[in-house]
Amino acid sequence: MPRFFMAGGNIGKGAAVIYGSDAEHIRVLRMKIGDELIICDGEGSDHRCRISRISDGCVETEVLGTEPSPAEPSLRCTVLAGFPKGERADYIVQKCTECGAAEIVFYQCTRCVARPDEKSMEKKLVRFNRIAEEAAKQSGRGIIPRVSAVPDFAGALDIAVKTQLSLFMYETGEREPLKTALEGSHGVSTAAIMTGPEGGFERFEADLAAAVGIKLCSMGPRILRCETAPVAALTALMYETGNM
Amino acid sequence: MPRFFMAGGNIGKGAAVIYGSDAEHIRVLRMKIGDELIICDGEGSDHRCRISRISDGCVETEVLGTEPSPAEPSLRCTVLAGFPKGERADYIVQKCTECGAAEIVFYQCTRCVARPDEKSMEKKLVRFNRIAEEAAKQSGRGIIPRVSAVPDFAGALDIAVKTQLSLFMYETGEREPLKTALEGSHGVSTAAIMTGPEGGFERFEADLAAAVGIKLCSMGPRILRCETAPVAALTALMYETGNM
Repeated sequence: MPRFFMAGGNIGKGAAVIYGSDAEHIRVLRMKIGDELIICDGEGSDHRCRISRISDGCVETEVLGTEPSPAEPSLRCTVLAGFPKGERADYIVQKCTECGAAEIVFYQCTRCVARPDEKSMEKKLVRFNRIAEEAAKQSGRGIIPRVSAVPDFAGALDIAVKTQLSLFMYETGEREPLKTALEGSHGVSTAAIMTGPEGGFERFEADLAAAVGIKLCSMGPRILRCETAPVAALTALMYETGNM
Repeated sequence: MPRFFMAGGNIGKGAAVIYGSDAEHIRVLRMKIGDELIICDGEGSDHRCRISRISDGCVETEVLGTEPSPAEPSLRCTVLAGFPKGERADYIVQKCTECGAAEIVFYQCTRCVARPDEKSMEKKLVRFNRIAEEAAKQSGRGIIPRVSAVPDFAGALDIAVKTQLSLFMYETGEREPLKTALEGSHGVSTAAIMTGPEGGFERFEADLAAAVGIKLCSMGPRILRCETAPVAALTALMYETGNM
């Protein structure tokens, strides 16, 4: 059944109206009155709808039933990534969206090389959120992960500690294997994964994270790039919790 | 201790000679006679060496001991990827090298969009192997995964079936969750992961794979891009087998 992603759409009171490029797409598919389709509202629900009227640039449908989007994982994972240079941020947004992140938050910390000012970051966020929307549509997500930025490391810690399982990917020092850390992940409904920028974390940053109760984790003997680490950690979490 | 990656290097009979940019690097580090360093031979062994002589553009060392490179996984996984368009192949090579692939093989199949001729593919392979070398150095690998190409799907199947655990990532139809398929992965020493090109696999290709004993697997309800799928499957395999 054709599936349309209509974030902020016009769904309510048993009816949904489709405009613009989606309406055009329905015309291209030669769908007609009585045909069924799925409208995902971008907030985790899929609405099964039947076309009731087709007019110029507008398709009216009747909602037959609503259910949670089947592609959404059972746990809401926030990816917190030290803001990287260049296209690496695009990559993190796209791949973490595909792999099931609920939210992506970039933060500044000691070893960040890219330090855009507030105005420049606002522009970048528009771009990142567009990438997330495209990746969400393409991968069949039920939500569009929100991409945002916090100005410092403390802000990132604050977000992480508010989840039930918060993990800090640390490339050195005392830490536990990710697999051990994830043993406690079954049944949790919120999690956070923190990864560093190009140069990794300062020791004091790891100490701070541990002090507030975030688990310091190792992803094994190979050093992953800053744009690979969040995707690998998220994949392991989804795998371990039966969401892959 | 500084670590140098010297594939095809000059290690033998208790001595190793370092030339070129690595010798220059040793000079930049202000290392002197008696200092120790590690030379990785690119074939899975790390050699602990002591500098015995420094001359113009050449550093001679004595090998003190040799051990398996600690970053190499316990199993040799071959990634078989349907050849994709543009930079996606670069991405697969770089990320799969970071994540522990032993070898990367591109193949042609029905839905491949990019179909370079033999000469063009040869050129690309030079580039891919350079990417693998850089990623191997950066991530601390003990080998440089070889990147090669086979001209068709049957050639890829032939490589896959020769491993102890061969997995085929299929986006539809009858298949088992990757997690179930990986239950048998403990103790295996060779594995293969097959992923498709942009448009995925034809049904007959999946049927063929199943017929020769390759497990058809699902990576969950979200559709991963062709360049994301091999990285996610490899990560799950490394995670499950304690290599992450």
